[in-house]
Amino acid sequence: MTRKMKALIKARPEPGLVLDEVEVPTPGPDEVLIQVLATTICGSDVHIYRWDDWAQRNIRPPLVIGHEVAGRVVAVGRHVEAWKEGDYVSVETHIVCGRCRACRTGNMHVCYRLQILGIHRPGSYAEYVCVPAMNLVRNDPRWHPAVASIQEPFGNAVDTVLCESVAGARVLVTGCGPIGLMAIGVARAAGADWVGATDPNAFRRSLALQMGADQVWDPTREPVLDLIMEATQGEGVDVVLEMSGHPAALDLGLKALAMAGRVALLGLLPTPVPVDLTDGFIFKGARMYGITGRHMFQTWYRVQAFLRDGKVPLERLITHEYPLEAFEAAFCQMEAGDCAKVALYPNLELVRPLHGLASA
Amino acid sequence: MTRKMKALIKARPEPGLVLDEVEVPTPGPDEVLIQVLATTICGSDVHIYRWDDWAQRNIRPPLVIGHEVAGRVVAVGRHVEAWKEGDYVSVETHIVCGRCRACRTGNMHVCYRLQILGIHRPGSYAEYVCVPAMNLVRNDPRWHPAVASIQEPFGNAVDTVLCESVAGARVLVTGCGPIGLMAIGVARAAGADWVGATDPNAFRRSLALQMGADQVWDPTREPVLDLIMEATQGEGVDVVLEMSGHPAALDLGLKALAMAGRVALLGLLPTPVPVDLTDGFIFKGARMYGITGRHMFQTWYRVQAFLRDGKVPLERLITHEYPLEAFEAAFCQMEAGDCAKVALYPNLELVRPLHGLASA
Amino acid sequence: MTRKMKALIKARPEPGLVLDEVEVPTPGPDEVLIQVLATTICGSDVHIYRWDDWAQRNIRPPLVIGHEVAGRVVAVGRHVEAWKEGDYVSVETHIVCGRCRACRTGNMHVCYRLQILGIHRPGSYAEYVCVPAMNLVRNDPRWHPAVASIQEPFGNAVDTVLCESVAGARVLVTGCGPIGLMAIGVARAAGADWVGATDPNAFRRSLALQMGADQVWDPTREPVLDLIMEATQGEGVDVVLEMSGHPAALDLGLKALAMAGRVALLGLLPTPVPVDLTDGFIFKGARMYGITGRHMFQTWYRVQAFLRDGKVPLERLITHEYPLEAFEAAFCQMEAGDCAKVALYPNLELVRPLHGLASA
Amino acid sequence: MTRKMKALIKARPEPGLVLDEVEVPTPGPDEVLIQVLATTICGSDVHIYRWDDWAQRNIRPPLVIGHEVAGRVVAVGRHVEAWKEGDYVSVETHIVCGRCRACRTGNMHVCYRLQILGIHRPGSYAEYVCVPAMNLVRNDPRWHPAVASIQEPFGNAVDTVLCESVAGARVLVTGCGPIGLMAIGVARAAGADWVGATDPNAFRRSLALQMGADQVWDPTREPVLDLIMEATQGEGVDVVLEMSGHPAALDLGLKALAMAGRVALLGLLPTPVPVDLTDGFIFKGARMYGITGRHMFQTWYRVQAFLRDGKVPLERLITHEYPLEAFEAAFCQMEAGDCAKVALYPNLELVRPLHGLASA
Repeated sequence: MTRKMKALIKARPEPGLVLDEVEVPTPGPDEVLIQVLATTICGSDVHIYRWDDWAQRNIRPPLVIGHEVAGRVVAVGRHVEAWKEGDYVSVETHIVCGRCRACRTGNMHVCYRLQILGIHRPGSYAEYVCVPAMNLVRNDPRWHPAVASIQEPFGNAVDTVLCESVAGARVLVTGCGPIGLMAIGVARAAGADWVGATDPNAFRRSLALQMGADQVWDPTREPVLDLIMEATQGEGVDVVLEMSGHPAALDLGLKALAMAGRVALLGLLPTPVPVDLTDGFIFKGARMYGITGRHMFQTWYRVQAFLRDGKVPLERLITHEYPLEAFEAAFCQMEAGDCAKVALYPNLELVRPLHGLASA
Repeated sequence: MTRKMKALIKARPEPGLVLDEVEVPTPGPDEVLIQVLATTICGSDVHIYRWDDWAQRNIRPPLVIGHEVAGRVVAVGRHVEAWKEGDYVSVETHIVCGRCRACRTGNMHVCYRLQILGIHRPGSYAEYVCVPAMNLVRNDPRWHPAVASIQEPFGNAVDTVLCESVAGARVLVTGCGPIGLMAIGVARAAGADWVGATDPNAFRRSLALQMGADQVWDPTREPVLDLIMEATQGEGVDVVLEMSGHPAALDLGLKALAMAGRVALLGLLPTPVPVDLTDGFIFKGARMYGITGRHMFQTWYRVQAFLRDGKVPLERLITHEYPLEAFEAAFCQMEAGDCAKVALYPNLELVRPLHGLASA
Repeated sequence: MTRKMKALIKARPEPGLVLDEVEVPTPGPDEVLIQVLATTICGSDVHIYRWDDWAQRNIRPPLVIGHEVAGRVVAVGRHVEAWKEGDYVSVETHIVCGRCRACRTGNMHVCYRLQILGIHRPGSYAEYVCVPAMNLVRNDPRWHPAVASIQEPFGNAVDTVLCESVAGARVLVTGCGPIGLMAIGVARAAGADWVGATDPNAFRRSLALQMGADQVWDPTREPVLDLIMEATQGEGVDVVLEMSGHPAALDLGLKALAMAGRVALLGLLPTPVPVDLTDGFIFKGARMYGITGRHMFQTWYRVQAFLRDGKVPLERLITHEYPLEAFEAAFCQMEAGDCAKVALYPNLELVRPLHGLASA
Repeated sequence: MTRKMKALIKARPEPGLVLDEVEVPTPGPDEVLIQVLATTICGSDVHIYRWDDWAQRNIRPPLVIGHEVAGRVVAVGRHVEAWKEGDYVSVETHIVCGRCRACRTGNMHVCYRLQILGIHRPGSYAEYVCVPAMNLVRNDPRWHPAVASIQEPFGNAVDTVLCESVAGARVLVTGCGPIGLMAIGVARAAGADWVGATDPNAFRRSLALQMGADQVWDPTREPVLDLIMEATQGEGVDVVLEMSGHPAALDLGLKALAMAGRVALLGLLPTPVPVDLTDGFIFKGARMYGITGRHMFQTWYRVQAFLRDGKVPLERLITHEYPLEAFEAAFCQMEAGDCAKVALYPNLELVRPLHGLASA
């Protein structure tokens, strides 16, 4: 099978991507080939597009990039028993060794030999993508592929919110990018008492309210710490979810944190970041969690439970949709900021857009 | 009762302490008066002695300082039913309101209206000290008062080590001050697989080995990160206990941390401290705990369990003993560094030193 | 103050209650006097009314009974600082010593010297009730007293559901008495994936659907185990909440339990009860929790969070309301069964019924 | 490779075993072939030997039985990368599907399609045994094969003791069979405050003391409940580890359990067993854990940590050693009872017995 397919490629060590034809991959014995119905753009893909420092350190061109995906199984390797042609699936993007101490102690998501789809091996910005069979998750046929695709980042949100129970807790979300917005929905669906959120972008603050935030603030213009203290009887918030990667947001979060509270960090902070660990953390007897990837596969069961019956209205976060060929417009939109998740369709003849393609 | 007693007083806002006579305090209705058999010097007392920034912000002279103490109940307030004259006790030094959200949710140790003995009210560097009855803990009569006194910092060590189980874990202790040394003993007694420790001071490294460390290193002279990786098959340590307050130790700890590991912070870090939270914490899917005080009173039950049958040989950490009057020598010894815990005896006629008074 | 008040009294060791006049109690130094706005009937009060074995072993007549209550503070003891006349409050009914090992380790709800309001000391079926100040919880003025009163059993429901997270879990509630119905609402509000419920009573099954159950069954007529397995792809339920006290319900729950699932027991089972612990529990690697009372006071914070914004529609569970004088009709209704919570108003001039008094 | 080997076979559906020659198995692509250095007798093997009800329901003759084993890899399947000839290994005996909800949520030990070595496929009472490569665990070359073999049941003990921390806890072990004895050692090594144990057999009580029990009792002759209450200041034990499978032991455990305590059940109880769940469990606010198998593979890391440096002196529990051919004497010894673990050596030319072969 040496058919060709179109794919978005980081062709050379420089900014931008190239739409080109490459061979359709052939699944190994424990792999499956998926026809991509929708693939969505992650912030890390924007870094690769821009070719920033992180991208230069992590990507070896040429490479088909992209990792958030939903599609249909079209071929299975010869050892694969659990999946068959036609299955409608999404993909866990962390490819793990299964043998290291992390893998063998319930922490596959931080495998010592971790490979990531679209970063360390060819990804999903293409008509087809090949992944290990163990990385598949079955989708409800009623879910739109764009929504099914964003289960992957939704899993990050679920892990960030639920590293401890939020039932009855007052929660602050700093940063209303897509995963921050998802986190608001999860906190709400999991019984949080109150959810506050901050973001400088008005479009995202408006989405935050739609996802269930009680209060939203622009941290560049409002005295957020005072307002949080007012909203929490001077006690502060029980839970801080740092989703922005901004040092100022972490600083706000630690100041706003209640005694014995907890912080979850998902946003990638500049390194090193100055932090007030003494007053903001130690003297509060607080706890902090670093979130990366998703628990494999506990998180996926929760992800799918939150999708069922619209507990978290994830479809609202698909704000822009494009054919794969319009990738330049899609990345342009991502950089402009007034959006949440942006979907690309490499096989537009097979899928009807969720809300409608963005106009040219 | 307006008897007089001798006491160590921070008399004026300046370095040093003064030995003077003050009135013996009278217990309120819910308080008890304790005759001090031993009181031990905490690092925070050295800060007060030196009159550094932290001390200047927190202490209002004149004040009798000191908070680690063991003694005998000599008078009880009229509402006190649980204690009587002659009881041999130690003291939880956090005095709490009992009504705030922290107190009412199992987190009295971070009470919103926290008062600390010897910092916010008269302390134990005296012949007598007055404390709320609810802060008492009963001692086994076989325990020497100097050992009974250091149960308080030992509680910090217990909470630092046991915020999660260490059974089967590889543990790094950065900083072998008294609480770091205690933590080594607790980790060993609670089933740690391997305990490594760092400290620039050779005397303390030698005590670390006595407390059960498998390996000790001087971080100023040895390539500790490489040595830890060698000792852990390149995986790093499951648990980092930061007991030094040095940014370099925290940095080492995060670099040495295994995937999905956890860090407990007890040492007070300069604020702000630069930290690599992205590679050192988030991408490892790690957890961090801030430790302050001791859980009231779960920790004390564990403290006493570890004292029984010598599970942790705490008496080895009483390295120097002085009459209260020799306080200058005692603080001098604390600043010199070749010591662990230093005991003061305000009523030397009532107690025989554990190992013998330090020679003049 | 030797005013008189009307009260419901278990006057003699025999079935029934007597409405009589007794002295208004005088609060001790650490107590408060509450004017009762609403008091609700607990199943245990029905046992006392009937004078069954349990009641005979636990009650010493004469005694004013009743313990679920909301009201207004009208007098405070001389040591009470945190409360004042006019405060609108509900009451934690477990009165604890504060000194035993259970109390000192975060488990006051199972204090070794536990006293219960209306069982071991005069209760709330009266115009006034006297309780320790530390047992008060402040109410939002917008909450109706009948709803505020049932926070106490609601706390049992919250602890039963949330002894572990239910986010994304499939939950079975066996028994749709009042606390079972509340549990359904909590499971729903805390992110359960699916909630099934069983009860032989059609009225209660109908309320179960109103509280958010996905499926309800009559275990006396339907093949419930098969239906649960069908609803859970043959895996069983992740969580069983046993709220009925029926051995058959526990047996069903253990058979329906998924691998690595958990069971919470609130319903009081006959003793001894035959249980299949080997196949139903050990070989499943399952966990079980015994629930009694409520965590003091973590649970109350969650209770109030679930009341805010109608996350759990508790007011639907107040199905019948009576003046205190109509207690015979109220207990008759409780025994008849087509009801959830029944409220009594001892001061009807001060409170307007939530839905309207039951017609005579 | 159709070589022959000697093996112990349940040849027919009747009591007893037969020593016979069978073909050496050939490893599949993901399997390895192990030359058996030591294989130890589990209680379940005695059930199979006797051919009791349980055995008749679970075993399909003819079958080579046995599952506790240590040996050397002698051949690997063609997909196996992590292991090679000569590796010294032990074996996790639960063979799992890796795809069911239990396997995908960190609970492989209760896989919905669980197969057990020596029960559902040919076992280790033979010169060679074939197992999936993922079931191997690497051994320290200094460990004797008989000790390495009993890591498997030791894992059960570790999971029973450490389903929660025992640091500072008072622990009761009911039943001093091999896993109960191991549990005593683990509780001691993991920081238990006090360990009491019961068993009617004097030889086992004596081993219990050697493993670190503070007190041991014969429950058929001593008033154990009173003695436990005396040893725990009337509070009861924080932790009950039920290792006997006797209803009377469970009853004792629940009566002896402290408020807010926890129970772990490993012994298989007759079904149904009468239990006092109301007073013994619910009113205590207690927790219960069912233990089966071992967490894969967190437990093995702990197992090996406890073996290192003799933290738990497991070699004392190898009380009898036999050549494979002397299996009748070995099973006879198991039924007689004055023993802990009994080892069989199918390749006695390759291994020197730990303490010496039992005399004929």
